[in-house]
Amino acid sequence: MSERLVIIGGVAAGMSAAAKARRANPALEITVYERTGYISYGACGFPFYLSGDVADIRQLLARTPAQMADEGIDARVHHEVLAIDPQQQTVLVCDHASGLTFSDHWDRLIIAAGASTALPPIPGARLPGVFTLRTTEDALAIKRWLQEEKPQHGVIIGGSYIGLEMADVMLANGITATIVDNAPQVMSTLDADMAAFVLAHLQAQGVTVSLDQGVSTFIGPAVTADIVERVAARVGGATAVLSRQDNGRLRIREVVTADNVFPAGIVVFGIGSRPNVALARAAGIAIGCTGAIAVDEQQRTNLLNIWAAGAAAETYHRVARQPVYIPLATTASKQGRVAGVNAAGGQATFAGVVGTSVVRALGLTIAHTGLNEKTAQSLGINSRSVFIEGKSRAGYMPHSQPLRFKLVYEAGSQKLLGGQMLGGEGVAKRIDVLATALHAGYTTHDLAELDLSYTPPVAPLWDPILIAANLANR
Amino acid sequence: MSERLVIIGGVAAGMSAAAKARRANPALEITVYERTGYISYGACGFPFYLSGDVADIRQLLARTPAQMADEGIDARVHHEVLAIDPQQQTVLVCDHASGLTFSDHWDRLIIAAGASTALPPIPGARLPGVFTLRTTEDALAIKRWLQEEKPQHGVIIGGSYIGLEMADVMLANGITATIVDNAPQVMSTLDADMAAFVLAHLQAQGVTVSLDQGVSTFIGPAVTADIVERVAARVGGATAVLSRQDNGRLRIREVVTADNVFPAGIVVFGIGSRPNVALARAAGIAIGCTGAIAVDEQQRTNLLNIWAAGAAAETYHRVARQPVYIPLATTASKQGRVAGVNAAGGQATFAGVVGTSVVRALGLTIAHTGLNEKTAQSLGINSRSVFIEGKSRAGYMPHSQPLRFKLVYEAGSQKLLGGQMLGGEGVAKRIDVLATALHAGYTTHDLAELDLSYTPPVAPLWDPILIAANLANR
Repeated sequence: MSERLVIIGGVAAGMSAAAKARRANPALEITVYERTGYISYGACGFPFYLSGDVADIRQLLARTPAQMADEGIDARVHHEVLAIDPQQQTVLVCDHASGLTFSDHWDRLIIAAGASTALPPIPGARLPGVFTLRTTEDALAIKRWLQEEKPQHGVIIGGSYIGLEMADVMLANGITATIVDNAPQVMSTLDADMAAFVLAHLQAQGVTVSLDQGVSTFIGPAVTADIVERVAARVGGATAVLSRQDNGRLRIREVVTADNVFPAGIVVFGIGSRPNVALARAAGIAIGCTGAIAVDEQQRTNLLNIWAAGAAAETYHRVARQPVYIPLATTASKQGRVAGVNAAGGQATFAGVVGTSVVRALGLTIAHTGLNEKTAQSLGINSRSVFIEGKSRAGYMPHSQPLRFKLVYEAGSQKLLGGQMLGGEGVAKRIDVLATALHAGYTTHDLAELDLSYTPPVAPLWDPILIAANLANR
Repeated sequence: MSERLVIIGGVAAGMSAAAKARRANPALEITVYERTGYISYGACGFPFYLSGDVADIRQLLARTPAQMADEGIDARVHHEVLAIDPQQQTVLVCDHASGLTFSDHWDRLIIAAGASTALPPIPGARLPGVFTLRTTEDALAIKRWLQEEKPQHGVIIGGSYIGLEMADVMLANGITATIVDNAPQVMSTLDADMAAFVLAHLQAQGVTVSLDQGVSTFIGPAVTADIVERVAARVGGATAVLSRQDNGRLRIREVVTADNVFPAGIVVFGIGSRPNVALARAAGIAIGCTGAIAVDEQQRTNLLNIWAAGAAAETYHRVARQPVYIPLATTASKQGRVAGVNAAGGQATFAGVVGTSVVRALGLTIAHTGLNEKTAQSLGINSRSVFIEGKSRAGYMPHSQPLRFKLVYEAGSQKLLGGQMLGGEGVAKRIDVLATALHAGYTTHDLAELDLSYTPPVAPLWDPILIAANLANR
């Protein structure tokens, strides 16, 4: 009898794992349980669907269950795993279509359950018109709201990656955009000096940014916050709430912070991800200090025959030299492949990350890799940095775009720690040069030696990476 | 008495050397002799001046002799060094303004004499309207010819970097472009399979390309090739040649190859550089097997107190593990800095190159690093390659551009040897990721581990670099 692999979660990590396991072991039975109605969706593409850049959400669905079936992978949507039994080697599954649960046996199990957006306990956070953006269903609901409700004012909670992308979405839809964030700066991956440039850019683009401000209440029409919250908690009852202003329809109307009241026809939470670890914890699987599932370089958990990958799991950071929680699609896909190979009986390892990430919104590309100075110092590393303002092309070329780069390195050893880059063209793949140098454990001296490409329409003679390295070497 | 540094050549390598030497040793006397009328010019920018992208050639002159004087560097234009005497430690210099020669003493000497375009011994190669493109004077002469003579047909000899850029210049000026090359392919840095894509692109853009065809004769009006050549050799006498068609003005009219006669109102040589080594050779300085000046990692020649840098010198290739001749502005600037520091009494070394180069012309970016398969095999390396067609952004994003990538590696060890990439946005700085990996001596397994940036508007989830690495690892 052939062995059976069950995978919990059918998005980036889960589907990569399934595909690699299938290739590594054609005899393996593979079943994927996905609690939403879609598998293999490109969640990073949702903002571009909402902005109108991507016309049809089906473009973001890399593969359907029918396509997976052709590869011999049984991918079931609307199937939520409720419990893992490591002794019996079973999972308890709820089929949301039928409403019934069933038990399923596995020989090997991969947990790729992803993450959730942690909704803070703020009154009104479940009002109609208040959204998270994580699943395909979320994206469809926001799109419908934009089209049917035609809100005029948008408020985004959180000023990092999704927050900036959603501000772009709002402006692209002709809606005002206000970003509210608890933190004293936008873009938490950046140091404060670099974040200040981003803030100025956002403001220049017409985005209102309210920092150091938590949301105290979301307010719907003609009712107090308390009433709204109580009513909204009873789904279905919401539409019964009377309102002078809105003809009886309950929905988000204002966002209240300590200092302000922002009008809001739509609110999107762009705050941090929380790994979905409840299932794993209940099954006795070790959770790391980051709050995500602890894994080794083979993506093994502490329990035999159980692997974890993606946004539910930790990641080893090669520069910080410790596990971190940085849930990104790139890492999820790579970890999924490793888990898939190993669960299929092969041998693969994940090398960890150097902390590379990039976002492009409102005409600005913001890229980061390694450690910023703030993080380096919190790890007790004696860091130094250099900052330069450069150009994407030779200075005399038309359309050359300004580029800001902060290079962080260790004092004394000159070992590279990380970099932050802001600009337009060439930013993302330039940060990749630094990511490669970090992977290699390079110093600023090594960096200055690199033979980087030059021709006036695509780079300056001295690439900003080299200028910064030379400056650090003085 | 302070020591005296003389630098022969005032462009990329020479001026970098002067600037670094000045910083390293404020007491040093520094004199730069440049035989053209301009120093510190950005020769790589000339095609963009000729296309009209750069309005004023002064934008390409990074520094003037007056600016250098402010830094305590005596930079003299129209001064040609005729001989080096290593025993007496002097140079014989011709001042072309006065027509007189003089001898100048040096304690340290840097040879940054650059390269020349080797004009083949073809009849008519000196006809008016036939140009090389190397000096500022060349660029100005071509610009004047384009403006005053308004040629309709352009022929470019050589189908590599300058050849492609000049084809772009022709089309930008409303002139037909024909590329003639002896070789069986365009872009000699590419393997034939990748060059075929470039050829198809050139043809699609309306460029006529004639390969495997040397030029046999350049023909002026109403005279035979022999007469033209004899007359053209006597400058000034040229205008006396009678012509029915051209009202007495001698100039290029046709380019004759084995199979074709191409009409030509302008011809530009875009063929290979020859290092200017006559001075060095006559002085007893060792010339390497590449034909350029042999240098060590400190840019020292075989003679005491004489360094060489830039297009007159060899470069160590870290992948080929031998000296090569790849004259590029990036390398010249880096070598110049090293020579400058060492000549000023400091300590610096040049790490060598990995063979990175890029050209962008006619809407196509062509980037290369390391060894191509052809070169690898000629070095006796058992190479393998993978080829992919990818995208510059997530496939569903608008404006995503196709990208072709060939990754070359050593069989068995999987050690990276090089890569060739064609496309639009993101090509140049993506090849830099590979250049960094080559610098680190990475394998395809290391390459697949890299934590490269991803967000839909700037990269696909699996960057083409990673896709190719994964394919090579199968």
